Formats: sequence, C-alpha cells, structure tokens
Amino acid sequence: MTDETKYLLPENKIPKVWYNIAADLPTPLAPVLHPGTGQPIGPDDLAPLFPMALIGQEVSTEREIEIPEPVRDVLRLWRPALLYRARRLEQALDTPARIYYKYEGVSPSGSHKPNTAVAQAFYNREEGTKRLTTETGAGQWGSSLAFAGRLFGLEVDVYMVKISFNQKPYRRALMEAYGARCVASPSVETNAGRAVLADHPDSNGSLGIAISEAVEMAAQRDDTKYALGSVLNHVLLHQTVIGQEALLQMEMADDFPDVVIGCAGGGSNFAGLAFPFIGRNITKGEKTRIVAVEPAACPTMTRGTFAYDFGDTAHLTPLVKMHTLGSTFVPEGIHAGGLRYHGMSPLVSHILDAGLIEATAQHQVGCFEAGLTFARSEGIIPAPESTHAIKQAVDEALKCKAEGTSKAILFGLSGHGHFDMQAYTDFLAGKLEDHAHDDVALNEAMSHLPDVAAE
Amino acid sequence: MTDETKYLLPENKIPKVWYNIAADLPTPLAPVLHPGTGQPIGPDDLAPLFPMALIGQEVSTEREIEIPEPVRDVLRLWRPALLYRARRLEQALDTPARIYYKYEGVSPSGSHKPNTAVAQAFYNREEGTKRLTTETGAGQWGSSLAFAGRLFGLEVDVYMVKISFNQKPYRRALMEAYGARCVASPSVETNAGRAVLADHPDSNGSLGIAISEAVEMAAQRDDTKYALGSVLNHVLLHQTVIGQEALLQMEMADDFPDVVIGCAGGGSNFAGLAFPFIGRNITKGEKTRIVAVEPAACPTMTRGTFAYDFGDTAHLTPLVKMHTLGSTFVPEGIHAGGLRYHGMSPLVSHILDAGLIEATAQHQVGCFEAGLTFARSEGIIPAPESTHAIKQAVDEALKCKAEGTSKAILFGLSGHGHFDMQAYTDFLAGKLEDHAHDDVALNEAMSHLPDVAAE
Repeated sequence: MTDETKYLLPENKIPKVWYNIAADLPTPLAPVLHPGTGQPIGPDDLAPLFPMALIGQEVSTEREIEIPEPVRDVLRLWRPALLYRARRLEQALDTPARIYYKYEGVSPSGSHKPNTAVAQAFYNREEGTKRLTTETGAGQWGSSLAFAGRLFGLEVDVYMVKISFNQKPYRRALMEAYGARCVASPSVETNAGRAVLADHPDSNGSLGIAISEAVEMAAQRDDTKYALGSVLNHVLLHQTVIGQEALLQMEMADDFPDVVIGCAGGGSNFAGLAFPFIGRNITKGEKTRIVAVEPAACPTMTRGTFAYDFGDTAHLTPLVKMHTLGSTFVPEGIHAGGLRYHGMSPLVSHILDAGLIEATAQHQVGCFEAGLTFARSEGIIPAPESTHAIKQAVDEALKCKAEGTSKAILFGLSGHGHFDMQAYTDFLAGKLEDHAHDDVALNEAMSHLPDVAAE
Repeated sequence: MTDETKYLLPENKIPKVWYNIAADLPTPLAPVLHPGTGQPIGPDDLAPLFPMALIGQEVSTEREIEIPEPVRDVLRLWRPALLYRARRLEQALDTPARIYYKYEGVSPSGSHKPNTAVAQAFYNREEGTKRLTTETGAGQWGSSLAFAGRLFGLEVDVYMVKISFNQKPYRRALMEAYGARCVASPSVETNAGRAVLADHPDSNGSLGIAISEAVEMAAQRDDTKYALGSVLNHVLLHQTVIGQEALLQMEMADDFPDVVIGCAGGGSNFAGLAFPFIGRNITKGEKTRIVAVEPAACPTMTRGTFAYDFGDTAHLTPLVKMHTLGSTFVPEGIHAGGLRYHGMSPLVSHILDAGLIEATAQHQVGCFEAGLTFARSEGIIPAPESTHAIKQAVDEALKCKAEGTSKAILFGLSGHGHFDMQAYTDFLAGKLEDHAHDDVALNEAMSHLPDVAAE
C-alpha cells in the first residue's frame, strides 16, 4: 500500500470502452414487453423515443462497446475522477479497515449523471436530433442533461416536478445557466399535463406525470427525442467508466477491495462502480463482496418482488422485469430524492436475483449521521443519496474494528450535497425522522402488479 | 504544448514552503501604525488576537517559510489543485489565445480560503488556542474556517452579517455541518453588538460590526484568538501554494503565461496566484504581465488613494497603508460579495504602487455574461467573484483574436458558484444592473481619511 490520499490517473486512462455486463451474465435478461400485447418489443417500438445507437446498446451482448472520441473528449473536463483513501475517516472511526471512495462530485453538475448524459447527447446529435426532453425530480439528472445538451448543440426541455421546481430554485437556476428550458410539471404544454391540471389545478406534480409530459413531447416531434437518467441498460453501461477507473486506481494503491458498496435508486450509480468488479467475480472467480444500499423507506430490493411492472406511475412505459414495490407505491418524503423510485433497474434486479450481489437498506437519520462524520473528517459534503453508501461503509468498518480485521472497503461517493443543504439544516435541527416502509401500503401496492407478472 | 485538458501534480508536489514576496520587494512595506499613538505597532500589540507564529510571518522578510507537515497533510485532501487548459472556451471565443485556469473550487468549502484557514487553525492549536472567532459576509471564509477548525479540534464562532445570515441559509448550514457556531451579527453576545442593537434593533449588520464582535470575543478570553480571511501579509503568504503549483503545471503544459489574471477583493486570491510570478519578474527579469481585477462598483485600486486608513468601518483596527476608498465607503450591493471591501491588502497595494502589477475594473453584467460563456463551455459554474477574472481573460483573448496574436493567458478561478445561484437567477431574469461607483460618495468617503494619511 502507498501513503497517498488521492489516486490520480492521466487523461489517457479514461476508459476507451464501456463494459457491458450482459455479455457475462449466467442467464439472459428477461425481455421487455409491450404493455398492450404482452409480446417482447423490438427496436422499432423504441425508435420514436431513442436514437438507434442507444437502442442497439440497450440490447447488445458485446462485452466491450467503444466510447466515441467526442464523448471521451467531454469526459476529460472532469475524468478520470479521483479515488481517495479516507484516512481521516478511518482515524475518526478508529478502525483497522482501509476505506476508499470514488468521488463523482467533481463533474460539472456534481454527480455521476453526466457520464451518461454526455453519451446520450452525442448519439442524439449524430442521428440528427435537435431537442431532448426529460423529466427531473430533485434536479441532478436535469442539470446533467442540460450541461451535456449544451455541449452538443441540442435544446433541452426539462419537465421538473412542480414541488421541486418551487422548493429547489437553485437546481433550476443551474439548468437554466446551462441554457436548458425548465418547465414546472404538470404544465399546460402537454395533453398529459393539461389533463392533470383540469382535475387538480394545484397539483404538486410527480415523477410519473413529468415522465408522461417528456415522453409525449418527444413522441410527437420528429426532431425531438427523450432521455432517461437511470434504469435502462444503456444508461448503466455508460456509468461503467467509474468502476473501470476504480480498478486502475486500486492497483495504484497496491490494494484491492474486499467489499464494494454503492447506493441504488434506479441503479445506475451502483452499477457504474460495481459492474466491472462483478464481471471479474464472474469471469475470474474473484470473491469481492458487492453491496447495493437502498433507503429503508423505499426497500425495492430488500422487500420488493421480482416481477414484470411498469416503469412509471402513469403506465405509459413498456413492462420490465425488476424488483418492484408496485408502480403505485409512494415512498415517504426522504431527502435522498434520487433513491425514491418504486423499482430497480432490470439489470441490477437480475444480478441480485442471480445471487451475484447483496442488498441492504439503511435508515435516513443514520445515513445523515454518517454523512456528517464523513464531512467533518474528509471535508466533502455528501449528497443525501451518497450518505447511504457512507453509512454502509462505516458499518463495515466498525465491524472490522469489532472483529479486529483489516479489510479494504471501497464505496461510491456519487455526488456532493451543495444543492441539498436544506436536508442538512433539517438534520442539524433534529427535524429528520426515520421513515420505515409502510407495510400496509407496500403490500397493497404490490398486490396490483400487472397480470403479466405471473409469467 | 501538450494536448491535455488538465494538468495533474502528485501529492509530493504540494509546495513545501510558502513564498514570501516581502523578501524580494524593491522597497519595504510601510509600517502598521497604532491608531492611538500613530507609532508602529509591535508583536505584543497583536498578541491578544493572533498566535506568535502568525505574527512572526506577518513581519517576516525570509523568502521561504516552511509549511508544517500537518498543514500539508490536510492540504492533500484537495491539493495540488488542477490547472486546466480552457480548450472549449477558446473554441467558443474563436481565439488564437491559449487560455489556462487554476481552479481552487475543489476545496471542501469551494474556494481558495481553506489554504490559509488550515494554516491558521494549525498554528493556533500549536499555541494552545481552544477557540477561534471570525466574521463572515457571504460565508466563503466562515465555512472555510469552520472546516479547518474542525480538523484541528478548535471551536469556531462565526459572526455572520445578519442580512447574509438570513438570505444565505445554506452557507450557514455548511458552517454548522462542519460543527461551527454561526451567530447573526449584530448579536447580544458582545458589547459591540448590544450597542448597535440598542440604537438599531432591526440592524441588518455589516462586516464592520461583525469584525468588532469577533475581535471583542477574542480579546476578552485567553483561550480564544481571532482569524482573518484576507488582507494581512500572513494570509496572502499562505495562498502562494496556488501560484507555485501553477508554475509547475505550466511547465507540464510546456507553455508559460504572457499574462496572469486574478480577481481582487481583500487581495489574497490574487496574491496567491500572482506573487510567485511577480517574484520571478523581480528576481529573474521575466516580463509576465500581472493584472488584478476589481469590480467597477468598488474601484479600490483604480480610483482609491494610497494612504493610511482603518481596516474596518468601526475603526478598531490598526492603521495600514493601502489603496482605499475610505473606510466609510459602502459599495453597491453587487453579487460578488467577496470583492466589496473598501481597501486592498497593504502588500498588493504596495506592489501596485511600485508598478509591478496592473489594476483594472470590470462591471457586473459583463462579468456574469463571461461567467455564463465559461460555464456553458467548460462546465464549471464560477463564483461571482471569479467571473471578474474570467471577464478579463475573455477580453484579453478577444484582443488576441483582433490582433491575430496567440498569447498564453492564465487566470485564477477562485471558487465555484454553487452557493451563489441566486445571482445567476437574477442575471438570467435580467435583474442585474451595472453599478458604477458613486463619484460623490466616493470623494466624500476619501475626504475623511485619518490624519496620519498625510505622512
């Protein structure tokens, strides 16, 4: 082991390919089904929404997919991202464990999201798209796509859940600073939005409604496509630059993780760090433990069922087989907005079902406590989502202390919390509570899965 | 020249010494005077407020002052900071100029301020200080000292100007996340605060009042000292890690700047980048142009007089010879809060008076325009203060384009704007105006300099 705090990689070590774990899966992914026919969908079904290059990646089983040079050239603005040895956190915990973290908060929008936003904007530009639509909740994804769209000369329209639009004006300012148009959803611009407003003029909106608006706008114009920030195979694929870099950096550190930890909402941050390690477990017989951490208030992996379900609450999307709490499940309003999704990406779900990873759930208050311990030793204020990975890493490190073992722990720090300071204010004021899932609501939601779930 | 976007330095290249430009000045600095006697003050006069190590640095003429290993060890959390080639900005401007920037926003609090906060916290801890007091306006300095104090086990009390305390709750949250106590100033904790509140119960506070409160609290307790975030010689000294790293990184880039640009409020960010280059101009006969940029609304260097004046509005501080607009001058409420100081550090003022640097003033709207151009090409959202350096760099680059010359331009990007998004919201909504200095108010303020100014 070396005595560095940060492990640097030169720009020529930005990965040249994305790692496609589909090539190494012991069993193939379940097909995506058309919600009307129940039959597997083909590329033509997706063509109104996505460029063909991304549809090709969605179904590819090639192990390595080349990263286009113009994409790598944008990634240079912040990649390779640093991998840190958390020496001061280790001291604060008085643990014999060696704790490492891969930090994605150095990107322009402050999280891992631009890794795929840039790729999606590039392929859309190549295929003649003029405008991208998307939805955003807390704004991490919307600001990332705004940035990426700007660099490739695309207009970006972001439908932002109205309550966030009003409560998080600075995330909106970030999107507008990058030149995107940010619209409070439900809006009067779409049939979907107008229908909601007709019934509920004061609607606060939801991610489901915002998706419907973004998809509607993309579907009705030839020059407009839709972009999604997580869940889909091609999105997870684009994030694998994270884990590939981490492998090189652990080598520089002359160490190797016994356990790799990532927080998981839709699954793309977790997948980005973990898939290259899982691939080695599969192909090289390594035994690295891989842990996905979800919020206890939205326990998709630890309590959900593995079944076909809709990706959105409005039931416009195809049916995908995933760990789900039911598309009508509405989790408590925890601050880790990026982890409040009723499902888990099909790829992560499949891998969990295959026993290749572990899943665990953490409560909000403990996560913020761990996040503050981290901030007060390492300096970086973590995003609320990222505190879930920190909490798990702290738990693992304290277990090492109790057992007197020195393991190497690597976790993903998916972003900074500069736009989430209200959460810290609430936590420091003692206003945060632990929301466990509501068993009744959860069972109710899971009792209404679409029929095809029986397949 | 190389084709990299970012120039990386390993941790062993964090400078081992600070560069003290006092050793290379053609003429010595004017002495600091006691406000009562008009006589030069000695170390004992400052001992109630500062540890002896810092007082020693304040008056040192040694060229190199060793950086203690525990300070370097904290700096490793984010240093060496990256130096970027702004290739996308160059493309956006269609300029033959080569634009580089040194980015200090990677520090935990998002600016250059921790470079000195860490050193000050260290020396205080070494001399037995238990608690540090300071003032903060927008909060960049307060959050940096909160972070540094935490790492060295010191309590930190920050007196934050009340209007900022109320308008910038997230900066306050950042200080509290690091464990500092943040108090709205004027407060009932001090005689100074109580006196203001007695006359003006609804006072919004001012930096002058907050300084008075922080100094009073430090002076009355043996275990408590005061910390300042700019202006003083030792503060500027601690920032010279910036320019020293930049020199190594320009060498890696196989290039050298024709002009070095920094924004200047109290002067420490500018000095940190510029002093190592100025030192080479003096000792090696190099001819690098050095440009300090101030806001047109607070034109200390371009319109102020070079005379003895008080550092604060309440006239508690010693008298220092500096470029000043008069301690009663209140600049318009521009968003670059860090540049709204009536004076300039004595060291930068002396160097300007000696003809070793140029000074220029930029208007707010042009700065934000340049800041957005930068954000939309390079990705990083700059702090409002930093946009002044960007604007000057853009002007220089466009001049190169007009003249058909390819010069190398290096500017300091002192911090990110994640906690200043209201400024961007206002700019995008067309609400920002250019505030030139008010000639009448300026002349009035400068007509009341203390008598000693005649010396």
